Amino acid sequence: MAKKVLIVYAHQSSGSFNAAAKNAAVEVLTAQGCTVDVSDLYAMGFKATATAEDIKGEVKNAENFCYLEESKLAWEQGKLSADIMEEQSKLTEADLIIFQFPMYWFSVPAILKGWIDRVLTNGFAFSQEKRYSQGIFKDKKAMLSFTTGSLESMFSPTGINGDMNVTLWPLQNGILHYCGFQVLAPQIFWAPSSAVAEDRKSMLESWRTRLQGLLEEKPLSFISLDCFDDKAFQLKPEVQEKHASKEFGLTVGIHLNKSLPPHSQMKAGC
Amino acid sequence: MAKKVLIVYAHQSSGSFNAAAKNAAVEVLTAQGCTVDVSDLYAMGFKATATAEDIKGEVKNAENFCYLEESKLAWEQGKLSADIMEEQSKLTEADLIIFQFPMYWFSVPAILKGWIDRVLTNGFAFSQEKRYSQGIFKDKKAMLSFTTGSLESMFSPTGINGDMNVTLWPLQNGILHYCGFQVLAPQIFWAPSSAVAEDRKSMLESWRTRLQGLLEEKPLSFISLDCFDDKAFQLKPEVQEKHASKEFGLTVGIHLNKSLPPHSQMKAGC
Repeated sequence: MAKKVLIVYAHQSSGSFNAAAKNAAVEVLTAQGCTVDVSDLYAMGFKATATAEDIKGEVKNAENFCYLEESKLAWEQGKLSADIMEEQSKLTEADLIIFQFPMYWFSVPAILKGWIDRVLTNGFAFSQEKRYSQGIFKDKKAMLSFTTGSLESMFSPTGINGDMNVTLWPLQNGILHYCGFQVLAPQIFWAPSSAVAEDRKSMLESWRTRLQGLLEEKPLSFISLDCFDDKAFQLKPEVQEKHASKEFGLTVGIHLNKSLPPHSQMKAGC
Repeated sequence: MAKKVLIVYAHQSSGSFNAAAKNAAVEVLTAQGCTVDVSDLYAMGFKATATAEDIKGEVKNAENFCYLEESKLAWEQGKLSADIMEEQSKLTEADLIIFQFPMYWFSVPAILKGWIDRVLTNGFAFSQEKRYSQGIFKDKKAMLSFTTGSLESMFSPTGINGDMNVTLWPLQNGILHYCGFQVLAPQIFWAPSSAVAEDRKSMLESWRTRLQGLLEEKPLSFISLDCFDDKAFQLKPEVQEKHASKEFGLTVGIHLNKSLPPHSQMKAGC
Protein backbone atom coordinates (compact mmCIF):
# COMPACT_ATOMS: atom_id res chain seq x y z
CA MET A 1 0.00 0.00 0.00
CA ALA A 2 1.19 3.53 -0.74
CA LYS A 3 2.92 5.11 2.24
CA LYS A 4 2.06 8.51 3.69
CA VAL A 5 4.82 10.92 4.58
CA LEU A 6 4.60 14.13 6.61
CA ILE A 7 7.43 16.65 6.28
CA VAL A 8 7.53 19.15 9.14
CA TYR A 9 9.57 21.90 7.57
CA ALA A 10 11.06 24.91 9.36
CA HIS A 11 12.86 27.41 7.15
CA GLN A 12 11.86 30.99 6.37
CA SER A 13 12.97 31.00 2.74
CA SER A 14 11.96 29.06 -0.36
CA GLY A 15 15.42 29.80 -1.78
CA SER A 16 17.26 28.02 1.04
CA PHE A 17 19.19 24.78 1.07
CA ASN A 18 16.60 23.45 3.53
CA ALA A 19 13.86 24.22 1.01
CA ALA A 20 15.81 22.34 -1.66
CA ALA A 21 16.20 19.35 0.69
CA LYS A 22 12.46 19.43 1.45
CA ASN A 23 11.60 19.71 -2.25
CA ALA A 24 13.88 16.77 -3.05
CA ALA A 25 12.05 14.66 -0.47
CA VAL A 26 8.64 15.64 -1.87
CA GLU A 27 9.73 14.82 -5.44
CA VAL A 28 11.48 11.51 -4.83
CA LEU A 29 8.89 10.16 -2.41
CA THR A 30 5.97 11.25 -4.58
CA ALA A 31 7.60 9.59 -7.60
CA GLN A 32 7.67 6.38 -5.55
CA GLY A 33 3.93 6.57 -5.08
CA CYS A 34 3.96 8.04 -1.57
CA THR A 35 1.46 10.67 -0.52
CA VAL A 36 3.50 13.56 0.86
CA ASP A 37 2.12 16.31 3.07
CA VAL A 38 4.22 19.31 4.13
CA SER A 39 3.68 21.43 7.24
CA ASP A 40 5.57 24.59 6.27
CA LEU A 41 5.70 26.11 9.75
CA TYR A 42 6.86 29.65 8.94
CA ALA A 43 4.48 29.93 5.95
CA MET A 44 1.64 28.72 8.20
CA GLY A 45 2.61 31.28 10.86
CA PHE A 46 2.59 28.32 13.23
CA LYS A 47 2.12 29.36 16.87
CA ALA A 48 5.16 28.22 18.82
CA THR A 49 4.18 28.96 22.40
CA ALA A 50 2.25 26.61 24.66
CA THR A 51 -0.50 28.70 26.23
CA ALA A 52 -4.06 28.44 27.57
CA GLU A 53 -5.25 29.65 24.15
CA ASP A 54 -4.44 26.16 22.86
CA ILE A 55 -7.52 24.97 24.74
CA LYS A 56 -11.02 25.84 23.57
CA GLY A 57 -13.30 27.11 26.32
CA GLU A 58 -12.57 27.12 30.03
CA VAL A 59 -9.47 25.47 31.43
CA LYS A 60 -9.75 23.27 34.52
CA ASN A 61 -7.46 25.29 36.76
CA ALA A 62 -6.81 28.84 35.57
CA GLU A 63 -5.17 29.85 38.86
CA ASN A 64 -2.48 27.23 38.59
CA PHE A 65 -2.42 26.43 34.88
CA CYS A 66 -0.39 23.32 34.03
CA TYR A 67 0.00 22.85 30.26
CA LEU A 68 0.81 19.13 30.47
CA GLU A 69 -2.40 18.36 32.36
CA GLU A 70 -4.70 20.86 30.70
CA SER A 71 -3.68 19.86 27.18
CA LYS A 72 -4.17 16.17 28.04
CA LEU A 73 -7.68 16.91 29.26
CA ALA A 74 -8.43 19.08 26.23
CA TRP A 75 -7.22 16.30 23.92
CA GLU A 76 -9.50 13.78 25.65
CA GLN A 77 -12.45 16.16 25.32
CA GLY A 78 -11.71 17.25 21.73
CA LYS A 79 -11.04 20.79 22.95
CA LEU A 80 -7.56 21.41 21.56
CA SER A 81 -7.26 24.37 19.19
CA ALA A 82 -7.83 23.73 15.48
CA ASP A 83 -4.18 24.18 14.45
CA ILE A 84 -3.04 21.49 16.90
CA MET A 85 -5.80 19.08 15.89
CA GLU A 86 -4.93 19.56 12.22
CA GLU A 87 -1.28 18.63 12.84
CA GLN A 88 -2.29 15.67 15.01
CA SER A 89 -4.52 14.44 12.24
CA LYS A 90 -1.63 14.65 9.71
CA LEU A 91 0.61 12.80 12.15
CA THR A 92 -1.97 10.06 12.72
CA GLU A 93 -2.20 9.50 8.97
CA ALA A 94 1.56 9.41 8.36
CA ASP A 95 3.81 6.35 8.18
CA LEU A 96 6.96 8.48 8.19
CA ILE A 97 7.64 11.96 9.57
CA ILE A 98 10.67 13.91 8.32
CA PHE A 99 11.69 16.98 10.31
CA GLN A 100 13.60 19.33 7.95
CA PHE A 101 15.33 22.29 9.61
CA PRO A 102 18.54 24.26 10.10
CA MET A 103 20.13 23.40 13.45
CA TYR A 104 19.85 26.45 15.75
CA TRP A 105 21.86 26.37 18.96
CA PHE A 106 22.52 22.60 18.98
CA SER A 107 18.78 21.93 18.60
CA VAL A 108 15.68 22.64 16.53
CA PRO A 109 14.50 26.22 15.82
CA ALA A 110 11.92 27.55 18.29
CA ILE A 111 9.06 27.27 15.78
CA LEU A 112 9.75 23.54 15.42
CA LYS A 113 10.17 23.13 19.18
CA GLY A 114 6.72 24.74 19.37
CA TRP A 115 5.31 22.08 17.06
CA ILE A 116 6.83 19.42 19.30
CA ASP A 117 5.62 21.04 22.55
CA ARG A 118 2.07 21.62 21.27
CA VAL A 119 1.32 18.75 18.87
CA LEU A 120 2.83 15.85 20.83
CA THR A 121 0.17 16.16 23.51
CA ASN A 122 0.13 14.02 26.64
CA GLY A 123 -2.34 11.22 25.87
CA PHE A 124 -2.18 11.65 22.10
CA ALA A 125 1.58 11.05 21.74
CA PHE A 126 2.55 9.30 24.96
CA SER A 127 1.37 8.14 28.35
CA GLN A 128 3.06 6.73 31.45
CA GLU A 129 2.52 3.21 30.09
CA LYS A 130 2.95 3.88 26.39
CA ARG A 131 6.38 5.32 25.74
CA TYR A 132 9.76 4.36 24.36
CA SER A 133 9.63 0.91 22.75
CA GLN A 134 5.98 0.59 23.82
CA GLY A 135 5.26 4.11 22.54
CA ILE A 136 2.06 5.14 20.80
CA PHE A 137 3.80 5.71 17.44
CA LYS A 138 5.79 2.47 17.40
CA ASP A 139 4.41 1.54 13.97
CA LYS A 140 5.60 4.85 12.49
CA LYS A 141 9.05 6.05 11.48
CA ALA A 142 10.56 9.47 12.07
CA MET A 143 13.84 11.17 11.29
CA LEU A 144 15.73 14.44 11.54
CA SER A 145 17.10 16.02 8.37
CA PHE A 146 19.08 19.17 9.07
CA THR A 147 21.81 21.58 8.08
CA THR A 148 24.59 22.66 10.42
CA GLY A 149 26.68 25.82 10.49
CA SER A 150 29.72 23.88 11.72
CA LEU A 151 31.92 21.44 9.84
CA GLU A 152 31.65 17.71 10.57
CA SER A 153 35.09 17.60 12.25
CA MET A 154 33.90 20.11 14.86
CA PHE A 155 31.12 17.72 15.94
CA SER A 156 33.38 14.76 16.78
CA PRO A 157 34.48 13.36 20.19
CA THR A 158 37.71 15.40 19.79
CA GLY A 159 36.11 18.43 18.11
CA ILE A 160 35.27 21.78 19.64
CA ASN A 161 31.46 21.23 19.61
CA GLY A 162 31.76 17.68 20.92
CA ASP A 163 30.29 14.44 19.61
CA MET A 164 27.17 14.93 17.47
CA ASN A 165 25.81 11.69 18.94
CA VAL A 166 25.55 13.49 22.29
CA THR A 167 23.77 16.49 20.79
CA LEU A 168 21.31 14.18 19.00
CA TRP A 169 20.42 12.12 22.07
CA PRO A 170 17.86 14.50 23.67
CA LEU A 171 16.15 14.98 20.30
CA GLN A 172 16.16 11.42 19.01
CA ASN A 173 15.73 9.59 22.31
CA GLY A 174 13.87 12.22 24.33
CA ILE A 175 11.33 13.18 21.67
CA LEU A 176 11.17 10.69 18.79
CA HIS A 177 11.93 7.41 20.55
CA TYR A 178 9.99 8.59 23.62
CA CYS A 179 6.82 8.64 21.48
CA GLY A 180 7.71 5.20 20.14
CA PHE A 181 8.83 6.22 16.64
CA GLN A 182 11.31 3.97 14.89
CA VAL A 183 14.05 6.56 14.43
CA LEU A 184 15.82 6.50 11.07
CA ALA A 185 19.42 7.72 10.94
CA PRO A 186 19.59 11.50 10.71
CA GLN A 187 20.36 13.15 7.38
CA ILE A 188 23.00 15.72 8.25
CA PHE A 189 24.01 18.34 5.71
CA TRP A 190 27.31 19.59 7.09
CA ALA A 191 27.74 23.35 6.68
CA PRO A 192 26.17 23.79 3.22
CA SER A 193 26.47 27.58 3.64
CA SER A 194 30.27 27.22 3.70
CA ALA A 195 30.34 24.77 0.77
CA VAL A 196 30.85 25.53 -2.92
CA ALA A 197 27.87 25.12 -5.25
CA GLU A 198 29.12 21.78 -6.58
CA ASP A 199 29.36 20.31 -3.07
CA ARG A 200 25.92 21.58 -2.17
CA LYS A 201 24.59 19.91 -5.31
CA SER A 202 26.29 16.67 -4.44
CA MET A 203 24.85 16.77 -0.88
CA LEU A 204 21.37 17.00 -2.39
CA GLU A 205 22.10 14.22 -4.88
CA SER A 206 23.18 11.94 -2.09
CA TRP A 207 19.97 12.77 -0.20
CA ARG A 208 17.91 11.94 -3.32
CA THR A 209 19.71 8.61 -3.56
CA ARG A 210 19.03 7.85 0.09
CA LEU A 211 15.37 8.81 -0.29
CA GLN A 212 14.90 6.03 -2.84
CA GLY A 213 15.34 3.39 -0.13
CA LEU A 214 14.45 5.44 2.93
CA LEU A 215 11.26 3.57 3.79
CA GLU A 216 13.08 0.24 3.84
CA GLU A 217 15.92 1.44 6.10
CA LYS A 218 16.59 -0.24 9.43
CA PRO A 219 16.11 2.18 12.33
CA LEU A 220 18.63 3.19 15.00
CA SER A 221 18.92 0.93 18.05
CA PHE A 222 17.42 1.85 21.40
CA ILE A 223 16.77 -0.25 24.48
CA SER A 224 13.52 -2.09 24.97
CA LEU A 225 11.27 -0.78 27.73
CA ASP A 226 11.13 -4.22 29.37
CA CYS A 227 14.86 -3.95 30.17
CA PHE A 228 13.89 -1.47 32.91
CA ASP A 229 12.08 -2.11 36.16
CA ASP A 230 8.75 -0.37 36.47
CA LYS A 231 9.32 1.47 39.76
CA ALA A 232 12.56 3.46 39.56
CA PHE A 233 12.87 2.78 35.80
CA GLN A 234 16.41 1.45 36.23
CA LEU A 235 18.05 -1.07 33.93
CA LYS A 236 17.31 -4.52 35.37
CA PRO A 237 20.28 -6.18 37.12
CA GLU A 238 20.24 -9.13 34.70
CA VAL A 239 20.53 -6.76 31.71
CA GLN A 240 23.42 -4.93 33.36
CA GLU A 241 25.16 -8.21 34.18
CA LYS A 242 24.76 -9.49 30.65
CA HIS A 243 26.34 -6.28 29.38
CA ALA A 244 29.10 -6.03 32.04
CA SER A 245 31.93 -7.38 29.90
CA LYS A 246 31.10 -5.21 26.89
CA GLU A 247 33.40 -2.38 25.87
CA PHE A 248 30.72 0.24 25.22
CA GLY A 249 27.63 1.48 27.00
CA LEU A 250 24.22 0.47 25.72
CA THR A 251 23.51 3.83 24.14
CA VAL A 252 24.55 7.48 24.50
CA GLY A 253 22.45 8.27 27.55
CA ILE A 254 22.27 4.79 29.07
CA HIS A 255 26.02 4.41 28.97
CA LEU A 256 26.52 2.53 32.27
CA ASN A 257 29.63 4.68 32.81
CA LYS A 258 31.35 3.01 29.86
CA SER A 259 32.54 4.66 26.62
CA LEU A 260 29.70 5.71 24.38
CA PRO A 261 28.88 3.30 21.56
CA PRO A 262 30.30 5.12 18.50
CA HIS A 263 27.84 6.50 15.94
CA SER A 264 24.84 5.01 17.75
CA GLN A 265 22.73 8.11 17.08
CA MET A 266 24.02 8.42 13.52
CA LYS A 267 23.94 4.93 11.99
CA ALA A 268 21.66 1.93 12.21
CA GLY A 269 23.14 -1.27 13.63
CA CYS A 270 25.57 0.44 16.03
CA MET B 1 29.56 46.77 43.71
CA ALA B 2 25.98 45.53 43.62
CA LYS B 3 25.49 42.78 41.05
CA LYS B 4 22.79 42.77 38.39
CA VAL B 5 20.78 39.64 37.76
CA LEU B 6 18.45 38.86 34.87
CA ILE B 7 15.93 36.05 35.29
CA VAL B 8 14.54 34.77 32.01
CA TYR B 9 11.39 33.08 33.19
CA ALA B 10 9.15 30.78 31.15
CA HIS B 11 6.03 29.55 32.90
CA GLN B 12 2.41 30.37 32.09
CA SER B 13 1.14 30.49 35.68
CA SER B 14 1.93 32.63 38.69
CA GLY B 15 0.72 29.78 40.88
CA SER B 16 3.31 27.33 39.58
CA PHE B 17 6.35 25.83 41.27
CA ASN B 18 8.47 27.60 38.64
CA ALA B 19 6.92 30.92 39.69
CA ALA B 20 7.76 30.14 43.32
CA ALA B 21 11.36 29.33 42.35
CA LYS B 22 11.59 32.59 40.38
CA ASN B 23 10.09 34.57 43.27
CA ALA B 24 12.56 32.99 45.70
CA ALA B 25 15.44 34.10 43.48
CA VAL B 26 14.09 37.65 43.24
CA GLU B 27 13.64 37.86 47.03
CA VAL B 28 16.93 36.35 48.15
CA LEU B 29 19.06 38.15 45.57
CA THR B 30 17.33 41.51 46.16
CA ALA B 31 17.85 41.11 49.92
CA GLN B 32 21.57 40.71 49.15
CA GLY B 33 21.60 44.08 47.40
CA CYS B 34 21.42 42.74 43.85
CA THR B 35 19.33 44.48 41.22
CA VAL B 36 17.06 41.82 39.75
CA ASP B 37 15.24 42.12 36.44
CA VAL B 38 12.74 39.50 35.24
CA SER B 39 11.80 38.77 31.64
CA ASP B 40 8.48 36.99 32.11
CA LEU B 41 8.23 35.57 28.60
CA TYR B 42 4.59 34.39 28.57
CA ALA B 43 3.36 37.55 30.29
CA MET B 44 5.30 39.62 27.73
CA GLY B 45 3.78 37.57 24.89
CA PHE B 46 7.37 37.13 23.75
CA LYS B 47 7.63 36.29 20.04
CA ALA B 48 9.33 32.91 19.72
CA THR B 49 9.86 32.61 15.99
CA ALA B 50 12.86 33.93 14.09
CA THR B 51 11.45 35.79 11.09
CA ALA B 52 12.22 38.73 8.78
CA GLU B 53 9.93 40.84 11.01
CA ASP B 54 12.75 40.85 13.55
CA ILE B 55 14.53 43.28 11.23
CA LYS B 56 13.39 46.87 10.80
CA GLY B 57 13.16 47.98 7.19
CA GLU B 58 14.37 46.07 4.15
CA VAL B 59 16.35 42.88 4.50
CA LYS B 60 19.47 42.36 2.39
CA ASN B 61 18.31 39.27 0.54
CA ALA B 62 14.56 38.69 0.66
CA GLU B 63 14.71 35.97 -2.02
CA ASN B 64 17.07 33.82 -0.02
CA PHE B 65 16.55 35.05 3.54
CA CYS B 66 19.17 33.75 5.97
CA TYR B 67 18.32 34.63 9.59
CA LEU B 68 21.87 34.19 10.88
CA GLU B 69 23.28 36.68 8.37
CA GLU B 70 20.39 39.12 8.25
CA SER B 71 20.12 39.41 12.03
CA LYS B 72 23.90 39.96 12.30
CA LEU B 73 23.67 42.80 9.79
CA ALA B 74 20.61 44.27 11.51
CA TRP B 75 22.41 44.15 14.86
CA GLU B 76 25.40 46.01 13.37
CA GLN B 77 23.10 48.63 11.90
CA GLY B 78 20.85 48.99 14.96
CA LYS B 79 17.92 47.59 12.97
CA LEU B 80 16.81 44.71 15.18
CA SER B 81 13.23 44.89 16.43
CA ALA B 82 12.59 46.70 19.70
CA ASP B 83 11.76 43.56 21.71
CA ILE B 84 15.11 41.96 20.81
CA MET B 85 17.08 45.14 21.54
CA GLU B 86 15.38 45.46 24.91
CA GLU B 87 16.39 41.92 25.91
CA GLN B 88 19.94 42.46 24.61
CA SER B 89 20.19 45.58 26.69
CA LYS B 90 19.09 43.68 29.83
CA LEU B 91 21.63 40.97 29.04
CA THR B 92 24.44 43.50 28.55
CA GLU B 93 23.71 44.98 31.98
CA ALA B 94 23.54 41.66 33.81
CA ASP B 95 26.32 39.89 35.71
CA LEU B 96 24.27 36.72 36.10
CA ILE B 97 21.45 35.26 34.00
CA ILE B 98 19.14 32.63 35.48
CA PHE B 99 16.92 30.70 33.09
CA GLN B 100 13.90 29.43 35.05
CA PHE B 101 11.65 26.95 33.22
CA PRO B 102 9.91 23.59 33.25
CA MET B 103 11.84 21.08 31.09
CA TYR B 104 9.76 20.30 27.99
CA TRP B 105 10.90 17.35 25.87
CA PHE B 106 14.43 17.14 27.29
CA SER B 107 15.00 20.84 26.57
CA VAL B 108 13.66 24.36 27.11
CA PRO B 109 10.06 25.31 26.19
CA ALA B 110 9.70 26.82 22.69
CA ILE B 111 9.14 30.35 24.04
CA LEU B 112 12.52 30.20 25.80
CA LYS B 113 14.18 28.65 22.74
CA GLY B 114 12.78 31.64 20.88
CA TRP B 115 14.50 34.01 23.31
CA ILE B 116 17.75 32.11 22.71
CA ASP B 117 17.34 32.04 18.90
CA ARG B 118 16.40 35.73 18.64
CA VAL B 119 18.30 37.51 21.43
CA LEU B 120 21.68 35.75 21.15
CA THR B 121 22.32 37.36 17.77
CA ASN B 122 25.40 36.61 15.69
CA GLY B 123 27.80 39.47 16.43
CA PHE B 124 26.11 40.48 19.67
CA ALA B 125 26.52 37.14 21.48
CA PHE B 126 29.25 35.35 19.52
CA SER B 127 31.52 35.49 16.50
CA GLN B 128 33.83 33.03 14.77
CA GLU B 129 36.71 34.33 16.94
CA LYS B 130 34.82 35.07 20.12
CA ARG B 131 33.20 31.93 21.40
CA TYR B 132 33.58 29.28 24.09
CA SER B 133 36.31 30.29 26.58
CA GLN B 134 36.99 33.42 24.49
CA GLY B 135 33.28 34.14 24.23
CA ILE B 136 31.74 37.59 24.37
CA PHE B 137 30.05 36.99 27.74
CA LYS B 138 33.06 35.46 29.51
CA ASP B 139 32.77 37.96 32.37
CA LYS B 140 29.17 36.97 33.00
CA LYS B 141 27.65 33.93 34.67
CA ALA B 142 24.61 31.97 33.56
CA MET B 143 22.69 28.97 34.82
CA LEU B 144 19.68 26.76 34.19
CA SER B 145 17.09 26.34 36.94
CA PHE B 146 14.35 23.92 35.97
CA THR B 147 11.71 21.43 37.00
CA THR B 148 11.44 17.93 35.54
CA GLY B 149 8.47 15.63 35.14
CA SER B 150 10.67 12.58 35.72
CA LEU B 151 12.29 11.35 38.92
CA GLU B 152 16.06 11.77 39.38
CA SER B 153 16.68 8.02 39.10
CA MET B 154 15.23 8.02 35.58
CA PHE B 155 17.88 10.53 34.46
CA SER B 156 20.92 8.44 35.44
CA PRO B 157 23.38 6.44 33.26
CA THR B 158 21.30 3.32 34.04
CA GLY B 159 17.90 5.07 34.01
CA ILE B 160 15.28 5.01 31.31
CA ASN B 161 15.83 8.65 30.19
CA GLY B 162 19.61 8.32 30.29
CA ASP B 163 22.23 10.45 32.00
CA MET B 164 21.07 14.03 32.68
CA ASN B 165 24.64 15.17 31.96
CA VAL B 166 24.10 14.16 28.33
CA THR B 167 20.78 16.00 28.09
CA LEU B 168 22.38 19.13 29.58
CA TRP B 169 25.38 19.19 27.22
CA PRO B 170 23.71 20.83 24.19
CA LEU B 171 22.14 23.48 26.42
CA GLN B 172 25.04 24.25 28.71
CA ASN B 173 27.89 23.79 26.24
CA GLY B 174 26.15 24.62 22.99
CA ILE B 175 24.35 27.76 24.15
CA LEU B 176 25.72 29.09 27.45
CA HIS B 177 29.39 28.16 27.22
CA TYR B 178 29.36 28.87 23.46
CA CYS B 179 28.63 32.53 24.26
CA GLY B 180 31.40 32.49 26.86
CA PHE B 181 29.22 32.45 29.98
CA GLN B 182 30.72 30.92 33.10
CA VAL B 183 28.10 28.22 33.61
CA LEU B 184 26.98 27.65 37.19
CA ALA B 185 25.75 24.18 38.14
CA PRO B 186 22.10 23.72 37.19
CA GLN B 187 19.40 23.88 39.84
CA ILE B 188 17.25 20.86 39.15
CA PHE B 189 13.91 20.46 40.88
CA TRP B 190 13.16 16.77 40.39
CA ALA B 191 9.49 16.12 39.68
CA PRO B 192 7.91 18.65 42.06
CA SER B 193 4.50 17.85 40.58
CA SER B 194 4.81 14.28 41.91
CA ALA B 195 6.11 15.43 45.32
CA VAL B 196 4.14 16.05 48.51
CA ALA B 197 3.78 19.66 49.69
CA GLU B 198 6.44 19.24 52.35
CA ASP B 199 9.01 18.06 49.81
CA ARG B 200 8.18 20.89 47.44
CA LYS B 201 8.70 23.31 50.29
CA SER B 202 12.01 21.76 51.15
CA MET B 203 13.16 21.96 47.50
CA LEU B 204 12.46 25.69 47.57
CA GLU B 205 14.22 26.09 50.93
CA SER B 206 17.31 24.41 49.57
CA TRP B 207 17.22 26.75 46.52
CA ARG B 208 16.96 29.78 48.86
CA THR B 209 19.99 28.52 50.76
CA ARG B 210 21.94 28.04 47.56
CA LEU B 211 20.96 31.52 46.34
CA GLN B 212 22.73 33.06 49.34
CA GLY B 213 26.12 32.05 47.96
CA LEU B 214 25.24 31.69 44.27
CA LEU B 215 27.32 34.60 43.02
CA GLU B 216 30.46 33.21 44.66
CA GLU B 217 30.07 29.69 43.24
CA LYS B 218 32.76 28.16 41.09
CA PRO B 219 31.48 27.43 37.57
CA LEU B 220 31.40 24.08 35.74
CA SER B 221 34.55 23.04 33.88
CA PHE B 222 34.85 23.30 30.12
CA ILE B 223 37.90 23.13 27.85
CA SER B 224 39.84 26.22 26.92
CA LEU B 225 39.56 27.31 23.28
CA ASP B 226 43.35 27.26 22.89
CA CYS B 227 43.33 23.47 23.37
CA PHE B 228 41.92 23.24 19.82
CA ASP B 229 43.65 23.94 16.52
CA ASP B 230 42.15 26.81 14.54
CA LYS B 231 41.51 24.99 11.25
CA ALA B 232 39.55 21.80 11.89
CA PHE B 233 38.92 22.81 15.54
CA GLN B 234 40.28 19.49 16.79
CA LEU B 235 41.83 18.94 20.20
CA LYS B 236 45.59 19.52 19.79
CA PRO B 237 47.70 16.32 19.78
CA GLU B 238 49.66 17.46 22.87
CA VAL B 239 46.41 17.91 24.84
CA GLN B 240 45.21 14.47 23.78
CA GLU B 241 48.56 12.89 24.70
CA LYS B 242 48.56 14.55 28.09
CA HIS B 243 45.08 13.14 28.72
CA ALA B 244 45.72 9.67 27.23
CA SER B 245 46.22 7.82 30.50
CA LYS B 246 43.17 9.36 32.18
CA GLU B 247 40.13 7.24 32.96
CA PHE B 248 37.48 9.71 31.79
CA GLY B 249 36.98 11.92 28.76
CA LEU B 250 37.52 15.65 29.08
CA THR B 251 33.84 16.46 29.13
CA VAL B 252 30.50 15.00 27.99
CA GLY B 253 30.84 15.91 24.32
CA ILE B 254 34.63 15.93 24.05
CA HIS B 255 34.90 12.47 25.53
CA LEU B 256 37.78 11.14 23.40
CA ASN B 257 35.91 7.80 23.28
CA LYS B 258 36.45 7.32 27.01
CA SER B 259 33.79 7.09 29.73
CA LEU B 260 32.06 10.38 30.42
CA PRO B 261 33.38 12.31 33.41
CA PRO B 262 30.64 11.77 36.03
CA HIS B 263 28.48 14.77 37.00
CA SER B 264 30.54 17.16 34.85
CA GLN B 265 27.44 19.05 33.72
CA MET B 266 25.92 18.94 37.20
CA LYS B 267 28.67 19.88 39.65
CA ALA B 268 31.60 22.27 39.64
CA GLY B 269 35.05 20.74 39.93
CA CYS B 270 34.21 17.47 38.10
